[in-house]
Amino acid sequence: MADEMPALDAECSVGIVSRQYHTFGSSEKPFVLESGQTLDQVTTCYEMYGTLNEARDNVILIEHGLTGSSHAAGRFKRDSPYAGYWDRIIGSGRALDTDRYCVIAPNALGGCRGSTGPSSPNPSTGRPYGSGFPTITIRDMVRAQRPLLADLGVRRIRLVIGASMGGMQAFEWAATYPHMVDAICPVGSSPRQTAQAVAFNHCMRRAIMSDPNWQGGDYYGGDGPRTGLAVARMIGHITYLCDGIMEDRFGLRELRPFPEPEGPNYVRFDVEEYLDDEGRKLVHRFDANSYVCVSRAIDLHDMGRGRGGLVAAMAQIRARCLLIAIRSDFLFPPEAVRKTVNDLREAGVRAAYWEMDSAYGHDAFLEEQAKLEAPVRAFLDDLALSAQLEHGAASR
Amino acid sequence: MADEMPALDAECSVGIVSRQYHTFGSSEKPFVLESGQTLDQVTTCYEMYGTLNEARDNVILIEHGLTGSSHAAGRFKRDSPYAGYWDRIIGSGRALDTDRYCVIAPNALGGCRGSTGPSSPNPSTGRPYGSGFPTITIRDMVRAQRPLLADLGVRRIRLVIGASMGGMQAFEWAATYPHMVDAICPVGSSPRQTAQAVAFNHCMRRAIMSDPNWQGGDYYGGDGPRTGLAVARMIGHITYLCDGIMEDRFGLRELRPFPEPEGPNYVRFDVEEYLDDEGRKLVHRFDANSYVCVSRAIDLHDMGRGRGGLVAAMAQIRARCLLIAIRSDFLFPPEAVRKTVNDLREAGVRAAYWEMDSAYGHDAFLEEQAKLEAPVRAFLDDLALSAQLEHGAASR
Repeated sequence: MADEMPALDAECSVGIVSRQYHTFGSSEKPFVLESGQTLDQVTTCYEMYGTLNEARDNVILIEHGLTGSSHAAGRFKRDSPYAGYWDRIIGSGRALDTDRYCVIAPNALGGCRGSTGPSSPNPSTGRPYGSGFPTITIRDMVRAQRPLLADLGVRRIRLVIGASMGGMQAFEWAATYPHMVDAICPVGSSPRQTAQAVAFNHCMRRAIMSDPNWQGGDYYGGDGPRTGLAVARMIGHITYLCDGIMEDRFGLRELRPFPEPEGPNYVRFDVEEYLDDEGRKLVHRFDANSYVCVSRAIDLHDMGRGRGGLVAAMAQIRARCLLIAIRSDFLFPPEAVRKTVNDLREAGVRAAYWEMDSAYGHDAFLEEQAKLEAPVRAFLDDLALSAQLEHGAASR
Repeated sequence: MADEMPALDAECSVGIVSRQYHTFGSSEKPFVLESGQTLDQVTTCYEMYGTLNEARDNVILIEHGLTGSSHAAGRFKRDSPYAGYWDRIIGSGRALDTDRYCVIAPNALGGCRGSTGPSSPNPSTGRPYGSGFPTITIRDMVRAQRPLLADLGVRRIRLVIGASMGGMQAFEWAATYPHMVDAICPVGSSPRQTAQAVAFNHCMRRAIMSDPNWQGGDYYGGDGPRTGLAVARMIGHITYLCDGIMEDRFGLRELRPFPEPEGPNYVRFDVEEYLDDEGRKLVHRFDANSYVCVSRAIDLHDMGRGRGGLVAAMAQIRARCLLIAIRSDFLFPPEAVRKTVNDLREAGVRAAYWEMDSAYGHDAFLEEQAKLEAPVRAFLDDLALSAQLEHGAASR
């Protein structure tokens, strides 16, 4: 769920990149959310790799996870130590091939990395929304990106791909705009949130709100609930790994051998230090209100809402689907993903299943992203072939 | 991990019970902990059901889980709505049969329900230990109970039984006093803590210590870190259940239908309300320092420490073992328990395995305790038969 990782190559695939911004809406014509609440203006921060073709039908849309950003590939500066989160699979000749496709990576609504979110200034007051930011849903995130694509002249999307919350957006794209989306590829994801995942997110939100610096969400100008946000992130990281990788990576290795006496703040085990580090790292790059807002959007995720249930929503989908499960995924285990594939097939959707052989847990979509290369490439090649055959059939 | 539950019967099995106390140690002869630190005095609060026989060899020792107490059966008052946590399997004619056995249930060292713990007065200052309470281990808990049994004249224990942390104590009993323990029955437990469980406990401790009322552990006289303790308990409760039972019990049932607008403190889903309730309930009956201290003891649990590793420690065990796994246990899944059984057998221990068919998760040892009746009864009957045969062989 880290949104940036060190690149393994000296040169990363798409070179130097920069953020772009798209804004729509006004107080006269606000963006109406699924909750009925409104946002006068919506800005989407995005990055773009590759070139839009003449027909403007070669777009691959990448959606990120909970704490992600638009920075999916390349580097902001030549000497930056970090490349985008999926740098290994984006670029010339890679699975998401920028020689053929125009890859667009937006930052989700509700986030804090350039798109409109709780830390953005409320146009009507000039101050950050804070507690006044409305409840948003995954469907709202998707709907908020539609005007960006329209203004780029894009009427068909070749593929929407994303992991975790990014996969949830892929599902929503397919159900909300069935005539616009050729294919989706959700990785370690689900068309509906689970009760257990809600439970974890609830504990994370409670940790944030228990911090006295939370101030009901209106902490801008002050320190903000850094301690609470760090605890939330630590809880999250347990779910991004799995018992096996925890045992392999950390076991019960002790930083200091027992029985060295300890105070209650003492960190004894490697795994404790790892979690503390992950907690500390997040607070420098993420806003607590966005964490609350986006995790709530995840919890409200239900592709079937307002569509007569999940089966009926699936029946609306025209996109071909490749669902990728991670063998050791704690949050979205393979059996749950396989069930979704079966449900999609029963609803008449062309759905394929691929299991990523990784012991890394949910985080494998970042840590072992190279393993996404083969299935995603094959899926895109097959889509291209089908498109050619269809085109051939049509012109015959 | 609740330590009290409503009894299903109008009359509970062992009637009205009361706590008893046993104290040992002095500043001249303190109790030396595994860490090398000392406690001048150790009090163990315990309950006793049934009668000690003449040979004093009919004792069943029950050890409790993280937030438990000595109250395993019966009621404190006739009109009390709560019976002991294992009331269904203790009593005349029940698995832990008080007609035949003398059941002793102590409160663990480090707890806050009558035995010495961080909230107890430090004899040298008269004030609660607080941050001055030493680091304790599961082995210390076991060693601290030995003088109680010695003073009762008990030299052999028929069975040590306990779930979760109680099972950890059972393992330590068998390895620490091999000539004293005839049999152990750990339920949903392990001879060694796992990295993932450490990770959860670490997050819980961090939640407690992030509360400004924590005051470094010296909060007595003040409010104490109630909010942090509640969050800790909520995290714990996720691990006591499992994804299946969460889905079955709560699904994504909403207390109020979306899209009713909400503030960030809004509780939308049943599962959120459930966790909030569990958090709220605990703070009235449990001390935050005890939570930190006892969860740390659990994390330090390693039967192999100082014994040449787990295999060597197992080889010291003379007790017969019945390991009970709960099918849906998240913390100690059946495959891990089966591995322990195999390891025990390879070390030459007579170890049996029984799987409790429950979808309830770790908490099944409380919620579906009636399912423990059959295997525990059979195990005790078999032990009694073996003892008779041995006795017969010896007297022949």
